[in-house]
Amino acid sequence: MKKVRVAILGVTGAVGQEFLSLLDERKFPIAELKLLASGKSAGKKIKFQGKALAIEEARPDSFKGIELVLSSAGAIVSRELIPHAVKAGAVVVDNTSAFRMQPDVPLVIPEINPLEISKHKGIIANPNCSTIIMAVPLYPLHKAARLRRAVISTYQAASGAGMKAMLELEEQAREVLAGKKPSKKIFRHQIAFNLFSHDSKIRPDGFTEEEAKMIQETQKIFNAPELKLVPTTIRVPVLRAHSESIVAEFERPLSETEARKILEKAPGVKVIDRREDNYFPMPIEATGRDEVLVGRIRKDPTTENGLAFFVSGDQLRKGAALNAIQIAEILFAKR
Amino acid sequence: MKKVRVAILGVTGAVGQEFLSLLDERKFPIAELKLLASGKSAGKKIKFQGKALAIEEARPDSFKGIELVLSSAGAIVSRELIPHAVKAGAVVVDNTSAFRMQPDVPLVIPEINPLEISKHKGIIANPNCSTIIMAVPLYPLHKAARLRRAVISTYQAASGAGMKAMLELEEQAREVLAGKKPSKKIFRHQIAFNLFSHDSKIRPDGFTEEEAKMIQETQKIFNAPELKLVPTTIRVPVLRAHSESIVAEFERPLSETEARKILEKAPGVKVIDRREDNYFPMPIEATGRDEVLVGRIRKDPTTENGLAFFVSGDQLRKGAALNAIQIAEILFAKR
Repeated sequence: MKKVRVAILGVTGAVGQEFLSLLDERKFPIAELKLLASGKSAGKKIKFQGKALAIEEARPDSFKGIELVLSSAGAIVSRELIPHAVKAGAVVVDNTSAFRMQPDVPLVIPEINPLEISKHKGIIANPNCSTIIMAVPLYPLHKAARLRRAVISTYQAASGAGMKAMLELEEQAREVLAGKKPSKKIFRHQIAFNLFSHDSKIRPDGFTEEEAKMIQETQKIFNAPELKLVPTTIRVPVLRAHSESIVAEFERPLSETEARKILEKAPGVKVIDRREDNYFPMPIEATGRDEVLVGRIRKDPTTENGLAFFVSGDQLRKGAALNAIQIAEILFAKR
Repeated sequence: MKKVRVAILGVTGAVGQEFLSLLDERKFPIAELKLLASGKSAGKKIKFQGKALAIEEARPDSFKGIELVLSSAGAIVSRELIPHAVKAGAVVVDNTSAFRMQPDVPLVIPEINPLEISKHKGIIANPNCSTIIMAVPLYPLHKAARLRRAVISTYQAASGAGMKAMLELEEQAREVLAGKKPSKKIFRHQIAFNLFSHDSKIRPDGFTEEEAKMIQETQKIFNAPELKLVPTTIRVPVLRAHSESIVAEFERPLSETEARKILEKAPGVKVIDRREDNYFPMPIEATGRDEVLVGRIRKDPTTENGLAFFVSGDQLRKGAALNAIQIAEILFAKR
């Protein structure tokens, strides 16, 4: 694999930092690494593989000579800057919602639809974190028995709202334990020792934007526009792994044993389902791991071909940075 | 209402303490109050309405002259001692699972089936906390449109495992924030900044005992053995209010507007459903309140007559002590 000239857009964020860790950990072949962020961070230095690299302000002309942009700087910044990166000849793997639903932009989870990657016209979109963590275990079951409908309730970590949200959870926990009123800067509601409906806008149909993303993105990734999904997205006082309770209905029969066998062989999935000692997926164990953990696998006896299970996955890794880097690895392995 | 000779069995527990608060707050007419607990606590004093009352060891002969026992001392203690209380002439409102599914024991939520109370033969069972918090808002919808099936995912507070579990959550949070390894005494898994499948036994069908209780108890309370429920019970790092994500299917059409109207008039329910500023039920706001908070009310467009909503209710109040005291109020108001 040839060495690649890489830029990270939004390097100071939680996902940006995870890009750096993963590029190193996975020995991504880097010819040049450009760190881009907002003007506030310009000039600050970040250590990477022993070298201190200066952060540059992300601007339309930041992408000359860059071949790959790993982007996670928010949808507004993405919409503004990414067209310039594409014009400069880079391929952009974008972690924001800016381009995901555009028909000519591949929306990719490498375990599911890797062939979409080669169809890109400069931008490949990384799905929403809740979508990825649900889709990775759901897809192999869908392939085996054809998913008809799923009811999903999420248990989403603070990291989904960025690094400052993670710090806010810790800071509020300290304040509550000290008997103080918790200070709120990022989240509208207290997150420590509390939970609340996902802090995205509510649409006229009563679903949150986060829920709408899970529905639409999964339909696009599975290439199954008829798929019926009913998510309820909830933010919980956990630092960086999302969990989801999933109750699925399939077209064809799917026994508990079959489902477990399929999941045990599925890429990106680790089955943790120890009934005898009550050991199932937990966010602290999903943290720092590449796989989505799956357990509580059981037949749903109340509907035809029903199956229930529970998953946990690292929101910053498979839910964001890891998925993007896996896409980049496929993209550049081909050359 | 005549004054009543009351004993509290398990007075040192989280629910026992809540019995005391509520007896005072609701001005329950007390002729005599006996505080019973295990031998360990005998002799210790508890203040009630300005008087220091000594705790006595709960024994088979503790119930002479007692008219009402409010019991929350665990299923094993209940099975052993409650028959003696009944023999001594008391009516027992028992918060444990010991007698709930016995056909001759009324299982009561006063907002739903108050007429069952008068059928008692000495014992009235208080349902499981997750059952109550789900059933209070679900029942009026069931009455209007007949519930067929519901998928439920719970977000259960530490209080459901008792006072020591609440302290463990706080203690572990302190340890994690100090960079220490959290100490585990009550829960098998870390609860601070984490979540896990409910810590009850897993049955051969893969459902937890907690989930089985929700199914069977709701069928009994609604007098609807054909009711289909698929719960997934999860413990979250919240102190004392349970939340639940509920996606229900009804026999008859039920619009979002109708459902909201029904819930706004329903006893024991408070609708908090402010889409415009993302304000929905939260455990910190349910804490200390009598009502089950209901919000995120929306049509589930993926099934016929589907409706989704989210609830939070105080596990120690309506989920336990308050429900028991409401039963006692009805019981003794009749005399």
